[in-house]
Amino acid sequence: MISAGVIGGSGYAGLELIRIISAHPEVELSVVTSRAENGKSIELLHPGLLPKSKLRLTDIDDPNLLKCDIVFFATPHGVAMKNALRFVEAGVRVVDLSPDFRLKNLNEWKKWYSMDHSCPTLVDAAVYGLPEANRSLIREAPIVANPGCYATAVQLGLMPVMGMDGIDHSRIIADAKSGISGAGREASQSKLFSEVSENFRAYALDGHRHHPEILQGLKAFSPKQDINLLFVPHVIPASRGIFASLYVPFLGNMNLSDIFEKWYQDSAFVDVLPIGINPETRFVRGTNRCLISVTHSSVSGNAIVLVVLDNLVKGAAGQAVQNMNIMFDLSERAGLDNLCIVP
Amino acid sequence: MISAGVIGGSGYAGLELIRIISAHPEVELSVVTSRAENGKSIELLHPGLLPKSKLRLTDIDDPNLLKCDIVFFATPHGVAMKNALRFVEAGVRVVDLSPDFRLKNLNEWKKWYSMDHSCPTLVDAAVYGLPEANRSLIREAPIVANPGCYATAVQLGLMPVMGMDGIDHSRIIADAKSGISGAGREASQSKLFSEVSENFRAYALDGHRHHPEILQGLKAFSPKQDINLLFVPHVIPASRGIFASLYVPFLGNMNLSDIFEKWYQDSAFVDVLPIGINPETRFVRGTNRCLISVTHSSVSGNAIVLVVLDNLVKGAAGQAVQNMNIMFDLSERAGLDNLCIVP
Amino acid sequence: MISAGVIGGSGYAGLELIRIISAHPEVELSVVTSRAENGKSIELLHPGLLPKSKLRLTDIDDPNLLKCDIVFFATPHGVAMKNALRFVEAGVRVVDLSPDFRLKNLNEWKKWYSMDHSCPTLVDAAVYGLPEANRSLIREAPIVANPGCYATAVQLGLMPVMGMDGIDHSRIIADAKSGISGAGREASQSKLFSEVSENFRAYALDGHRHHPEILQGLKAFSPKQDINLLFVPHVIPASRGIFASLYVPFLGNMNLSDIFEKWYQDSAFVDVLPIGINPETRFVRGTNRCLISVTHSSVSGNAIVLVVLDNLVKGAAGQAVQNMNIMFDLSERAGLDNLCIVP
Amino acid sequence: MISAGVIGGSGYAGLELIRIISAHPEVELSVVTSRAENGKSIELLHPGLLPKSKLRLTDIDDPNLLKCDIVFFATPHGVAMKNALRFVEAGVRVVDLSPDFRLKNLNEWKKWYSMDHSCPTLVDAAVYGLPEANRSLIREAPIVANPGCYATAVQLGLMPVMGMDGIDHSRIIADAKSGISGAGREASQSKLFSEVSENFRAYALDGHRHHPEILQGLKAFSPKQDINLLFVPHVIPASRGIFASLYVPFLGNMNLSDIFEKWYQDSAFVDVLPIGINPETRFVRGTNRCLISVTHSSVSGNAIVLVVLDNLVKGAAGQAVQNMNIMFDLSERAGLDNLCIVP
Repeated sequence: MISAGVIGGSGYAGLELIRIISAHPEVELSVVTSRAENGKSIELLHPGLLPKSKLRLTDIDDPNLLKCDIVFFATPHGVAMKNALRFVEAGVRVVDLSPDFRLKNLNEWKKWYSMDHSCPTLVDAAVYGLPEANRSLIREAPIVANPGCYATAVQLGLMPVMGMDGIDHSRIIADAKSGISGAGREASQSKLFSEVSENFRAYALDGHRHHPEILQGLKAFSPKQDINLLFVPHVIPASRGIFASLYVPFLGNMNLSDIFEKWYQDSAFVDVLPIGINPETRFVRGTNRCLISVTHSSVSGNAIVLVVLDNLVKGAAGQAVQNMNIMFDLSERAGLDNLCIVP
Repeated sequence: MISAGVIGGSGYAGLELIRIISAHPEVELSVVTSRAENGKSIELLHPGLLPKSKLRLTDIDDPNLLKCDIVFFATPHGVAMKNALRFVEAGVRVVDLSPDFRLKNLNEWKKWYSMDHSCPTLVDAAVYGLPEANRSLIREAPIVANPGCYATAVQLGLMPVMGMDGIDHSRIIADAKSGISGAGREASQSKLFSEVSENFRAYALDGHRHHPEILQGLKAFSPKQDINLLFVPHVIPASRGIFASLYVPFLGNMNLSDIFEKWYQDSAFVDVLPIGINPETRFVRGTNRCLISVTHSSVSGNAIVLVVLDNLVKGAAGQAVQNMNIMFDLSERAGLDNLCIVP
Repeated sequence: MISAGVIGGSGYAGLELIRIISAHPEVELSVVTSRAENGKSIELLHPGLLPKSKLRLTDIDDPNLLKCDIVFFATPHGVAMKNALRFVEAGVRVVDLSPDFRLKNLNEWKKWYSMDHSCPTLVDAAVYGLPEANRSLIREAPIVANPGCYATAVQLGLMPVMGMDGIDHSRIIADAKSGISGAGREASQSKLFSEVSENFRAYALDGHRHHPEILQGLKAFSPKQDINLLFVPHVIPASRGIFASLYVPFLGNMNLSDIFEKWYQDSAFVDVLPIGINPETRFVRGTNRCLISVTHSSVSGNAIVLVVLDNLVKGAAGQAVQNMNIMFDLSERAGLDNLCIVP
Repeated sequence: MISAGVIGGSGYAGLELIRIISAHPEVELSVVTSRAENGKSIELLHPGLLPKSKLRLTDIDDPNLLKCDIVFFATPHGVAMKNALRFVEAGVRVVDLSPDFRLKNLNEWKKWYSMDHSCPTLVDAAVYGLPEANRSLIREAPIVANPGCYATAVQLGLMPVMGMDGIDHSRIIADAKSGISGAGREASQSKLFSEVSENFRAYALDGHRHHPEILQGLKAFSPKQDINLLFVPHVIPASRGIFASLYVPFLGNMNLSDIFEKWYQDSAFVDVLPIGINPETRFVRGTNRCLISVTHSSVSGNAIVLVVLDNLVKGAAGQAVQNMNIMFDLSERAGLDNLCIVP
């Protein structure tokens, strides 16, 4: 059995890691930390966890973390960059769900996260953990930077066409929508039920932190380095789910759906839907799957790529476990093979 | 007092007409019809209506309808075109909330609604009831074709810029989202709570009935007649609200927000938000208002126009009453001056 | 025109007061305070308020408050008791939506609110503002203690039977449910969308602050002073609405529905539904109405009294305006006569 | 591997059976029928099922059903009673999720389901499938009548105390609340999103079909056969979840929480929460667990028993699989051991 530690177990990504790892046939959950609840029983995080574990919550200095085979950081930005090095040096593999190691350009990182990066060494060593792009690098990585939820959806929906003739890279639009759990579990008025329910809104029109992450990723697949991507995120009055509507100017003759189909034919979790079936966020709720449909618009030279995933699974904890599976040479599907829960 | 009749009182638009007209200071609700509930008390439509009216439901042949000053059709398509003429001939003004008289091109109508139009005469006579476009024509119209909900939002968000230099009319994108009440009150599995809640989906990627309606309206404001508008509707897991994210390629130097501000300065219900404030559907819930923000994208040559309205009010019943106010020379705000209900 | 001030305009009750007063034909909203937003435009509370008022937010020391005819406290407990006296002494009528003046027994108050009461004088002078119980006292009151939302629902559902033979006062059960807006607008994790949605829970099983308030009110209508009321509140995953299921042991022969009907026959806002129709919270959403049904159980000696109201209207701001109407000899329905908004 | 067939795969219980059986380590899903979709791919029921099965939907006459080791009926009432016998006679074990074999008294059955029972023989042979009551009988049963969702919650919450001194069996109250998925997946107006959302309602005040089922079950544990149980169901604006608030008159001295704790100490799925922690429906979402808290009321001689379960799992498909596990001598937890999904 692989021994795993979760640093930051009380947020939504942390809880989801606990849920997934508890059901994983080859991994044992050995340590869970929660700064606020240090010393208490894990059931305090959520009575729904009660019967599964006699773990007590500890904090990030728990020496047992260094005995784990792998630790997951499910912490706000700025925590992993201060703590990951000692795990890496001790030979503990690391998957960081926070943004600390996603951007290779440290000036970009500072611009978007308003602090200097304290661990440039590991930024170099870190592999961006989008398995559909970097599977072989992930296998050997000492530390994996788990992608953001929007960033996962948009990259999976654009990667296959970035290198194609006929695509206009200068005016791609991503109209993305996310359930409110993507904004985390910390209390704030704008996330209250009575503010989110029966409401729909856009935000971050002047720029979102996932934008540079998406561009960095897409450039690896594009012959042109000057990609213009207009990315506008919105909030769905729902807990889970990312829905990305991608508008890609395309003047070629090929059937893009076939291109996608071929691109993802060996992918464990990304499926291209038959023409005429569009993805819905409920089709992937609670699963690590990403569903994509591709439609050629009849009114303009655009391909419409629709992408759905569960922001807490393929967009966070599930992808982290997928990365762990790759890092430890397990089946990529191990522990991630459940059907969606409907309704 | 103006005497009003509502034909089709049991759907969401019909109920909303009853709610608004009941509070209107200069209109009396005289007749409400409901094919299914003919003869029963109006409270059967909704016990929330109980204390307000002793009306009994009748059907479309009720002779009292011909004594009204105005009748509203809140019926499925195909009903108004078979019944409106006798009201017009009797001098009763008509506002049709259904799509029967919206499209001037009868071939287009047949294509989208799968039946021949039975009343071409009135199609010629009908005025498209978007007050912000056709106020003076509405005043004299014997019959007003009340716009669709999406069509209202998209036209209000694009009208001001259609005639501008620097706009590329060939690749405008409207990513629109609507609450599920826009799909009506008839029972169907896809509208069940357990299918809509915690879900987000797109639909009608091969074309939506509001598309030709939007184009017909926009062409009146455009020097170019070959507008390419990609229109993709989505379903929000909420009852009310339209949110349209409009992406308009724009290479000019002007501040489009000022253009919008000036365009709507005398409008009773359309407001342009200060720069930096984005509209949310809850800001207009239960009101006849339309809120718009305009943002120049920093990453590409696009203006992002965000439009919100309540699909049952400015997108249906409220706009119908606004049209009535214009037709009868009342204050345009009469009966429509309430604040939004939050939460 | 009556000039009104709202102290504490940024919470849900405060926003609802603004909504209702803005539509009131005989009242002008003169002052709105918000400690946190002092000096800013009222539209900052909510852009949905933008077009209606050019008011700027002030704080509780604004001298214009003393020029009002009436001020409403929509503040957390402990604020009104420290500030109400100077308004009363200046001849400004006061309606306090907080619990500060509801309990006549100051020991009880201290027990439930964990602080000494700083203004016992006004506790004596204050009238408990349940119009259906105290209408004539309210008319003359210098200060009205507006009832709690649960307390309103439970009292309206039990008042008519407290004096009846055949009722067993020792074992009445109130299983009450409330939308989450009843818990206020301050940020807390337990009120987040992702914690409330798709969840149902009970709370305060060891006692709720509305319990002594209910008992104090019911004793005025009961020959027995030792009422045992088991009151268990629950949270509905919705913003608005109180639903109280009241189980009253009853062995008499009378039809209790008739008793209720007669009791409320002259009431402006309380309606008893015909037998066989049960109330639903949506029937009163956005209105000041309270709907009641009474059913004699066939399986045991119980009457089931179901009560619904909107916690922010009849349970807070609407009842406050109803009290104001009574205090100023206006029609009790003035400004409160709208139909429910559905859906 | 055990071979299983699901008759009626397109409803919520059927879909949930497919979800659970697909993850069961010792069972293979061999046949799924759906009258309406006969011949189509199983993915048509739900694209979320797409990657897991190449099954095609058949109908109830599919001969492969008779080759299964077990078949589940997830059909409306009246179907199983006409079809179960041939499976039983062929040696196929049957679990019927419908109410056809729950009531031993055929007159009661006829009264509540408005048809004569067509298979009295199997009514005698059927075992009521509440494992916590009938585990050993279930093991040998040719056919198991899987309990209703409310019936499961109320019985699990009352069974432990029915035989106790100090309980007053004549006035127990069950105020029960259910998510709307309990009403099934067939289209009807009252289940539409816009009718359920932001609403709370009671129903079936004149009697609910689960009432006789509950009484039949409780009598086995009670020395008194004249139990008066007042059962009032309500609808929660959520998809999943049963919350039962049980009010039990109790004058004894014992700590009932301990009694419950002892009663369920060997139970695989029923847990009694520590005093002070109340159950919430989200704690069991997607799991087969039932959580119970017991509180002695300080204001009256009542114990408050709160029970939560997921109506589609422990209240339907999960309990059916639990019964299968018992029938085939598998671990009772097999395939049912997942943590709840939060949020």
